[in-house]
Amino acid sequence: MSAALITPDWIAVDWGTTNLRAWAMGADGRVLAHAESDDGMGKLAREGYEPALLRLIGGWLEGRPPVIACGMVGSRQGWCEAPYRAVPCLALDTLRTVTAPTSDPRLSVSIIPGLKQAQPADVMRGEETQIAGALRLMPNYDGVFCLPGTHSKWVHVSAGEVVSFQTFMTGELFALLSEASVLRHGMQGEGWDDAAFETAVSDAISRPERIAARLFALRAEGLIAGLTPAAARARLSGLLIGTELAGAKPYWLGQRVTLIGAEKLSAAYASALALQGIKAERLPATECTLAGLALLSPQTLAAQ
Amino acid sequence: MSAALITPDWIAVDWGTTNLRAWAMGADGRVLAHAESDDGMGKLAREGYEPALLRLIGGWLEGRPPVIACGMVGSRQGWCEAPYRAVPCLALDTLRTVTAPTSDPRLSVSIIPGLKQAQPADVMRGEETQIAGALRLMPNYDGVFCLPGTHSKWVHVSAGEVVSFQTFMTGELFALLSEASVLRHGMQGEGWDDAAFETAVSDAISRPERIAARLFALRAEGLIAGLTPAAARARLSGLLIGTELAGAKPYWLGQRVTLIGAEKLSAAYASALALQGIKAERLPATECTLAGLALLSPQTLAAQ
Repeated sequence: MSAALITPDWIAVDWGTTNLRAWAMGADGRVLAHAESDDGMGKLAREGYEPALLRLIGGWLEGRPPVIACGMVGSRQGWCEAPYRAVPCLALDTLRTVTAPTSDPRLSVSIIPGLKQAQPADVMRGEETQIAGALRLMPNYDGVFCLPGTHSKWVHVSAGEVVSFQTFMTGELFALLSEASVLRHGMQGEGWDDAAFETAVSDAISRPERIAARLFALRAEGLIAGLTPAAARARLSGLLIGTELAGAKPYWLGQRVTLIGAEKLSAAYASALALQGIKAERLPATECTLAGLALLSPQTLAAQ
Repeated sequence: MSAALITPDWIAVDWGTTNLRAWAMGADGRVLAHAESDDGMGKLAREGYEPALLRLIGGWLEGRPPVIACGMVGSRQGWCEAPYRAVPCLALDTLRTVTAPTSDPRLSVSIIPGLKQAQPADVMRGEETQIAGALRLMPNYDGVFCLPGTHSKWVHVSAGEVVSFQTFMTGELFALLSEASVLRHGMQGEGWDDAAFETAVSDAISRPERIAARLFALRAEGLIAGLTPAAARARLSGLLIGTELAGAKPYWLGQRVTLIGAEKLSAAYASALALQGIKAERLPATECTLAGLALLSPQTLAAQ
């Protein structure tokens, strides 16, 4: 019964491939409640989206608050396609959302489109909202955002627009290699070794072409040189992040850099960048998501 | 009943992580019969090895032929550990095999040890036998062997000895990325595109640090630029093989190079090397394995 008492001004939704996260937002911008489930895009057919959302936030809909959503929910395989907008452009255009088809009369869902870049070909969905939010938190920011994650993004922002961006598969490589490859045998547990991480970052930046050999060396050192799981895990992370930094050098060299991400992952990127002489600023990912989604809240729209 | 009529002089066994392959060999070196199963190391407990072998070759044991085995069967997680020999050393030392514990009186199984290298740390199991075989097929060979596969090996051989080697996780990365990553969506089918492969090899060799970004570009081009599955698959292969060649340059630059591998994979490596001006020779993998195992056949041992 207590859930039924939540009457948000609007509802923020971040709907990705593996998770669905929602926040009941007050008129003053405060979070009244948070809920999440594993009803990500990956396990939903088109007709499954509305029921999944109702399961999670059905108790918040008394006052028919608008729902603002970002992420893979707007992809071609999602609830309803919100076609990519082409950079250079504003991270978020309040006039370019797409309304999802719903049958529950209490539901009104707007989906924010992702961004695409023709050359080199690249796409994002969800990060554009974080960038829009970051730009509200850091007005007049000119420089680079790095959004580490499954598919890490480096984004050049100037005069309020996304100028260009590049995606690196670093997080997905880490997951595949540490969980599904031969390297998994030497990576049990949650241990970490800062020195191993830092050495690996430097090794990868100075000789990125050795990556596939350095990966196997983790296995070999585990077998014949007593490499610990903590060192192996940190070194794998350092090798992959270092390789990313080597490839992303045109983005960070001589630039103002701000990391938008989860606490631990952002800390790892910050320490890797510090080794290159870059003192990165940091913003929490969820705060940026909510600040971006709030661009479409009733209050913000009314104030425009 | 016909299987019971096979009375080999000896039995060759290549026992890897995923497969068990056996050949009934005649005294004249001919293959009398071949059999294989998926009873690889990965699915066997220690007590499962002898039954798995008997299931496969029980019909060949009338004359108590010796069984000579190489591969992961000799690892710590295998049937019985055949400790690594340290390079530099002969690829195969006929005095350093390990006898597996058996209870069937018809069985006598010798396991060939793998090789290890202290610095940079590296290991092989099975490839040492192929190298020993290749050196019988190409006497006095001085140069480099490349054994492409799940864990590709580059091996420097001089004066009949393995001097040094380096392993690249190229094949495992290809399998993980094409089957288990977000890239799998754009890679259905078996198509191939030679031009896409060659461009990707060159791109990777010239800018190996961009690998994680180029991987995601396969996904992005599939979404917004109509990249075909055949081109995506060939480009993924080219990017990974090109990155390997960039890292293995000290092995192949200015060297005589011979590929030992499966037909299609060796052809891909040969064409990638040709782009670098290297005309690689080629040997079939199975022929090398059998020639190496035959160093321990009764006839060869008797002739020594």
